[in-house]
Amino acid sequence: MKKTDTRDRIVEAATVLFQLKGYHATGLNEILRESNAPKGSLYYYFPEGKEQLALETVNLTKEFVEKTIKERLAKIQDPAESIKNSIEEMADLVYTQKDEKLALRSTKKVSINLIALETAATNENLRKACESAFNVWQDAYTQKLIEGGFNREKAETLGLVIQSMVEGAIIMSLTKKSDKPFIEIAKQIPILLA
Amino acid sequence: MKKTDTRDRIVEAATVLFQLKGYHATGLNEILRESNAPKGSLYYYFPEGKEQLALETVNLTKEFVEKTIKERLAKIQDPAESIKNSIEEMADLVYTQKDEKLALRSTKKVSINLIALETAATNENLRKACESAFNVWQDAYTQKLIEGGFNREKAETLGLVIQSMVEGAIIMSLTKKSDKPFIEIAKQIPILLA
Repeated sequence: MKKTDTRDRIVEAATVLFQLKGYHATGLNEILRESNAPKGSLYYYFPEGKEQLALETVNLTKEFVEKTIKERLAKIQDPAESIKNSIEEMADLVYTQKDEKLALRSTKKVSINLIALETAATNENLRKACESAFNVWQDAYTQKLIEGGFNREKAETLGLVIQSMVEGAIIMSLTKKSDKPFIEIAKQIPILLA
Repeated sequence: MKKTDTRDRIVEAATVLFQLKGYHATGLNEILRESNAPKGSLYYYFPEGKEQLALETVNLTKEFVEKTIKERLAKIQDPAESIKNSIEEMADLVYTQKDEKLALRSTKKVSINLIALETAATNENLRKACESAFNVWQDAYTQKLIEGGFNREKAETLGLVIQSMVEGAIIMSLTKKSDKPFIEIAKQIPILLA
């Protein structure tokens, strides 16, 4: 087995556990058991332990979701139609199985909103990593709006509003087991951007 | 000490721990230690253990927040102005100390969004309790809109959208340590309701 395989297995196991149980309830021993990795290798790759592992999973999710949002937004030129369509695509992911990386509750990425709510008051490093993820996603909407002719100030405000609406829809959809929050949020986008 | 005092102390201790560590990471032994209650009394009042305690804290928060939203909305007759003002009042609570019950991160109530994200996929009883809280809060906005002359269907859709926006603003504000998400969401309300 290659060294990189071991590191990947540790990150994959941590991702599953953070996603199913959250940050606080996940222990390093469980991550070792799930990943089937020797204890020494966990400390070799992640000398800072659980926090460093969580930062890694947050950053991987941040990059994956950023890429996904940008690909969605690139499909349609008009910003209102493009952002509306992007949110409608998220609606389809409410019912997707958790072994698919795009699924709302996928165990192949972490929920930034869960880790953010768990750590915002207690762990500055993780809070800042989650904030950075939200900022990067928000900025994808802002850039699309600027390309579509909005001035920077207006585009930044709307980027923040859209990102907030999406995070809210994620929580409401998961809790209600329904895609309706995404569907209804999507319909408001052309009104907000008019 | 009266019996009710013991029960209250158990609920208060559970609320603090669920709020600081989340549902999964909180153990019954910690709740006992924090509440200074005898082990027998915890099982006497909450024979179903941690889940029953969490349901109690979720329901208490649901009622408190419902009352708060309705009081805010009653201050102004016009629905758009009233809902905008209600969200602006939430902005002030981003920086409020956690020992105040209204504070965004108060330890005197639980975060429904945190418990919802923790349990939506793994605990149907808690998921449904969180869903019920969101529904009751959403319905407060819907009722205000109906009183203001909106038809029921439109009012229900907007209630869901507003509740989603508020939940998103809560997450973004906590993570960014900023009241800006609430401020900007509030400004969109008159546009959505026009």
